[in-house]
Amino acid sequence: MNTFGEIYRLTCFGESHGPAVGGVVDGVPAGIEVSVDAIQEQLDRRRPGQSSLTTARRESDRVEILSGIYEGRTLGTPIGFIIRNTDQRPADYGNLAEVYRPNHADYTYQAKYGVRDFRGGGRASARVTAAWVVGGAIAAQALSSLGIYISAGVISVGKVCGSKEEMEAEVLRAKNSCDSVGGVVECVVSGIKAGVGEPLFGKLHARLGAAMLSINAAKGFEYGAGFSSAGMRGSEMADEFYTDDDGTIHTRTNHSGGIQGGIANGEDIIFRVAFKPTPTIALPLETVDVNGNKITIEASGRHDPCVAFRAVPIVEAMAAMVVLDAVLQNRSARW
Amino acid sequence: MNTFGEIYRLTCFGESHGPAVGGVVDGVPAGIEVSVDAIQEQLDRRRPGQSSLTTARRESDRVEILSGIYEGRTLGTPIGFIIRNTDQRPADYGNLAEVYRPNHADYTYQAKYGVRDFRGGGRASARVTAAWVVGGAIAAQALSSLGIYISAGVISVGKVCGSKEEMEAEVLRAKNSCDSVGGVVECVVSGIKAGVGEPLFGKLHARLGAAMLSINAAKGFEYGAGFSSAGMRGSEMADEFYTDDDGTIHTRTNHSGGIQGGIANGEDIIFRVAFKPTPTIALPLETVDVNGNKITIEASGRHDPCVAFRAVPIVEAMAAMVVLDAVLQNRSARW
Amino acid sequence: MNTFGEIYRLTCFGESHGPAVGGVVDGVPAGIEVSVDAIQEQLDRRRPGQSSLTTARRESDRVEILSGIYEGRTLGTPIGFIIRNTDQRPADYGNLAEVYRPNHADYTYQAKYGVRDFRGGGRASARVTAAWVVGGAIAAQALSSLGIYISAGVISVGKVCGSKEEMEAEVLRAKNSCDSVGGVVECVVSGIKAGVGEPLFGKLHARLGAAMLSINAAKGFEYGAGFSSAGMRGSEMADEFYTDDDGTIHTRTNHSGGIQGGIANGEDIIFRVAFKPTPTIALPLETVDVNGNKITIEASGRHDPCVAFRAVPIVEAMAAMVVLDAVLQNRSARW
Amino acid sequence: MNTFGEIYRLTCFGESHGPAVGGVVDGVPAGIEVSVDAIQEQLDRRRPGQSSLTTARRESDRVEILSGIYEGRTLGTPIGFIIRNTDQRPADYGNLAEVYRPNHADYTYQAKYGVRDFRGGGRASARVTAAWVVGGAIAAQALSSLGIYISAGVISVGKVCGSKEEMEAEVLRAKNSCDSVGGVVECVVSGIKAGVGEPLFGKLHARLGAAMLSINAAKGFEYGAGFSSAGMRGSEMADEFYTDDDGTIHTRTNHSGGIQGGIANGEDIIFRVAFKPTPTIALPLETVDVNGNKITIEASGRHDPCVAFRAVPIVEAMAAMVVLDAVLQNRSARW
Repeated sequence: MNTFGEIYRLTCFGESHGPAVGGVVDGVPAGIEVSVDAIQEQLDRRRPGQSSLTTARRESDRVEILSGIYEGRTLGTPIGFIIRNTDQRPADYGNLAEVYRPNHADYTYQAKYGVRDFRGGGRASARVTAAWVVGGAIAAQALSSLGIYISAGVISVGKVCGSKEEMEAEVLRAKNSCDSVGGVVECVVSGIKAGVGEPLFGKLHARLGAAMLSINAAKGFEYGAGFSSAGMRGSEMADEFYTDDDGTIHTRTNHSGGIQGGIANGEDIIFRVAFKPTPTIALPLETVDVNGNKITIEASGRHDPCVAFRAVPIVEAMAAMVVLDAVLQNRSARW
Repeated sequence: MNTFGEIYRLTCFGESHGPAVGGVVDGVPAGIEVSVDAIQEQLDRRRPGQSSLTTARRESDRVEILSGIYEGRTLGTPIGFIIRNTDQRPADYGNLAEVYRPNHADYTYQAKYGVRDFRGGGRASARVTAAWVVGGAIAAQALSSLGIYISAGVISVGKVCGSKEEMEAEVLRAKNSCDSVGGVVECVVSGIKAGVGEPLFGKLHARLGAAMLSINAAKGFEYGAGFSSAGMRGSEMADEFYTDDDGTIHTRTNHSGGIQGGIANGEDIIFRVAFKPTPTIALPLETVDVNGNKITIEASGRHDPCVAFRAVPIVEAMAAMVVLDAVLQNRSARW
Repeated sequence: MNTFGEIYRLTCFGESHGPAVGGVVDGVPAGIEVSVDAIQEQLDRRRPGQSSLTTARRESDRVEILSGIYEGRTLGTPIGFIIRNTDQRPADYGNLAEVYRPNHADYTYQAKYGVRDFRGGGRASARVTAAWVVGGAIAAQALSSLGIYISAGVISVGKVCGSKEEMEAEVLRAKNSCDSVGGVVECVVSGIKAGVGEPLFGKLHARLGAAMLSINAAKGFEYGAGFSSAGMRGSEMADEFYTDDDGTIHTRTNHSGGIQGGIANGEDIIFRVAFKPTPTIALPLETVDVNGNKITIEASGRHDPCVAFRAVPIVEAMAAMVVLDAVLQNRSARW
Repeated sequence: MNTFGEIYRLTCFGESHGPAVGGVVDGVPAGIEVSVDAIQEQLDRRRPGQSSLTTARRESDRVEILSGIYEGRTLGTPIGFIIRNTDQRPADYGNLAEVYRPNHADYTYQAKYGVRDFRGGGRASARVTAAWVVGGAIAAQALSSLGIYISAGVISVGKVCGSKEEMEAEVLRAKNSCDSVGGVVECVVSGIKAGVGEPLFGKLHARLGAAMLSINAAKGFEYGAGFSSAGMRGSEMADEFYTDDDGTIHTRTNHSGGIQGGIANGEDIIFRVAFKPTPTIALPLETVDVNGNKITIEASGRHDPCVAFRAVPIVEAMAAMVVLDAVLQNRSARW
């Protein structure tokens, strides 16, 4: 449940307000050049408190690598790492022991386990994705040596699908009305060779979908033409093949999103992830306490008005792990 | 790659025009009453040639159970089964050895494996989902004994989101213009208890998403408010909790789609899957042959104008396997 | 539970007296030349009724390949196969519904599942290893193309560790006294390159040990000096390294059994498996029936006096699957 | 490769002379009372430098729990932990960069990965088993609440199979002659219920075997009558069933070692593990350096003359994880 991947595997741990989050990356081939600074850079991108669009909370998020990297290269052994939780203000979260916040996992964790670490959401907190970013940053460094690059960005906020300024304005409108707003992140994987990916239950887009839907607040995933393909005719959707001057086979359009039958066709892989609005808002919401009694809550803490922006490096990290895993799996495709 | 699930696991095999498709269902608890007739009924729903909306090809699709069921009950041992391929007309598919059909997996399989069984799409054919329906039909019988039911249906065809007659008319319009059309399937899981599902990388919606995106022609997955949640404010999206007369906690709305933090909250689970138009159409399409030379193809075979209708029992089957797996995993949630 | 392996994976099914046993081999690279006749040959070696040393029961054991092999080569898709159970004489086993035979799995299956297919031992029958032999025979064909060969033989029967004639005489002595006798099988894997195998929990000898201990009647596993190493001094045990004329590093002795730290060192891999005497004997044994009442049983059926001989091809098959799996895993060892 | 278990899973990391070893225990049910002191106690048992029989090296081995335990109980979330490596004297191991020690994993790691952390054996060091002991100590606390207890001890050293004093004398004889000596550890699991364990490839003794063979220096595994059963007749081996006064079914003898068909029969589970002599000895040994040149080495460091004694808590830890895993798997045996 806390392990992701088949060959390149991240196992993660940690509650929001425990001593640390962290993980183990296993299945890393020996001899990959890894810069710890480059990992830290990705963690810094994920960190809140960097702009008016994200929460004011400060997390230092310093990764400590404990094994598996020696003199700047991977050893082939598992890479253990931790990120200490430094900004633990239990007072902020005191009443959460007694309440089920709407659209959070408080109630479902309690229903499942009969116990929970309510502080900051515990294991259900987005804080745990810091460990995913580490796993993804290592994968991305391996992929870049193959010429594979992954890049994501927010393409819409609420009903606004425009310039960065227009989207920022929409976030601020939500924030100023004590509310939050959803958004869509689009991601492109370039440089992947035709043949990478597995068929059947290992389809590349199914793996990417599962990865993206694992991210907190994700509500939908689509690739290539996605949901709009349901409204299309077969003749519109057809990605006709042609041979370019180098003798490489390409498609004229990319409604397929770079994946056919679960396997990369060599075009850019393109997918989108829908994120719901942050559930914690400063407006009053009705709910129940742990005894089922009706109460009204109103968040006073520091929260992102739009999680899509902070999701960007997490989307990239998860994609990097999926793609590297597929590259490694593909090494067994032929005798 | 050909195994699906964690505890309740289906491993499947088979090419479209080989001797048989089939599979092994492992992890089935002992003592479940299973009717082979009820499995056959689900297979019959999947079968083509049943209406004007689906292909005229006839597949008898008779399942033979080889193990694991004894005197109407599961033994706890794996259930092996096969479905013979009876309608093998190699002449129909002769030229496929030489051509890469647009929006099919011909090119990507060749790129991956360096060899392929081109007859009828081989392993990439939707034919392989017959085995999934068997795995799902067994799971559904187990779930029904717990009061959990799964039901899917087509909710839109092309740009038509109306009555069954209007959607059928759209399919016929596509068919009559030698074209095909996409569609969206919606599925509801009712009767699931709060607490079922796993957090982190085992999130119930991520598992459902991966399952649905494994189905041929699926291009997108969303649950609850899905992509539309990206356009919402947090205050709209909030599923406020209340306690009903029985003391059970419910949400007033169900934008969450029955899942919070990856775990069922006891409401109906609702999700949608987007299917692209059938790629094989009777209009001329440009493509290349296996040597990279430009050619034009035009399908003459028997094909569904809209795969969404035949996907319905497959969506239900995959959902049944995911949900039963989650129910079994949940048995280890507490000491 | 019914799946074996990490990349090259066999999933098997079948009860002794159901319609068939069979399986699915997944993770097979594309392009391996596979002869179905060679698979059948291995099955024939496993079959009972071939000599005075094995049971007189006749099993035809004809394998039918259902997928994954096309024109003599693997497709990279799963290989499904079945072996029909033809010699089903239920009358022979009628009273087994009511009795727990000593040293069989009757009682433990009942305790676990609350139900069992008692006919011929059901899923606990050695019959199920027919499917393992198929998985192993395919693996062995792949390995032979790499110059890796696996060969096993019985090295002791009862207390006799001598020539084939002396061991046969011991089997006949046991048989003539209505009894059975145990034995030890030794297996050698030659041609494996240094570096194949995984450390930690994937150690090559741990994988081989698990594989061998999965075989019915196996009671112990050792490799290299094995249990005798516990009686040795470090100075005796040391496999000193030297460089041969070709510049290859070798060890002068092979107490390590070809594996150091879980990884092959390039020497022959040597291991031994202890098999207990066949539990079914024609002498009276006390036991209980399913109601706990004391009864005496005396087998009248056809049984091997010494299972070690029939275990030989199964030992080879399991070893072949382990070694091929390790070869494939090793493809991800380096970047 | 660095993950052990199916439901209760330990993923571990760490090199001998890196910053830390550690791991993540996933699949732990919520609500188990866990004492961190009791974990530390097990670690202290494993620690070297405790008697004349073990190495004089001091490792403080203090475990830090980072997640998954809250107010003395498990949360159902993964338990992350680290143990800092404090006694890192690189000077002691300087020449190891250049040499392949006999019966160590130096050569095989280099052959596999093309790179290695040679300091103290790196990932191949027995140091890594500290993390296993943590995983086992948590499992043991869960099992004790079910009345399941695991206890191991050394039963022979070299050729001496006598009292503790006689075995100690043999260790000292080896030590005084600058040599080392092997030994056998026996382990008993009591209190396990009939029905726990899985058939086929999940056989309880196969899982135990794989676990034990994962321990550094293990060369063999047997359960019940083990290798001696190969020398027995079926009539001697038969564990006849009887019903005791409480109506419980038992066997009169326990040649089966508490496991029949891979499943516990309710008797004590008994198994033995053979450990080779410590390969590092103070006598001169011939070997080669990394360039293949012949050299002579002679260990001067601090090493156990007999690893069997320090293996005892590791054997118990691995057994505890296997048994708890089987208990959890058994929750899905019946509907």
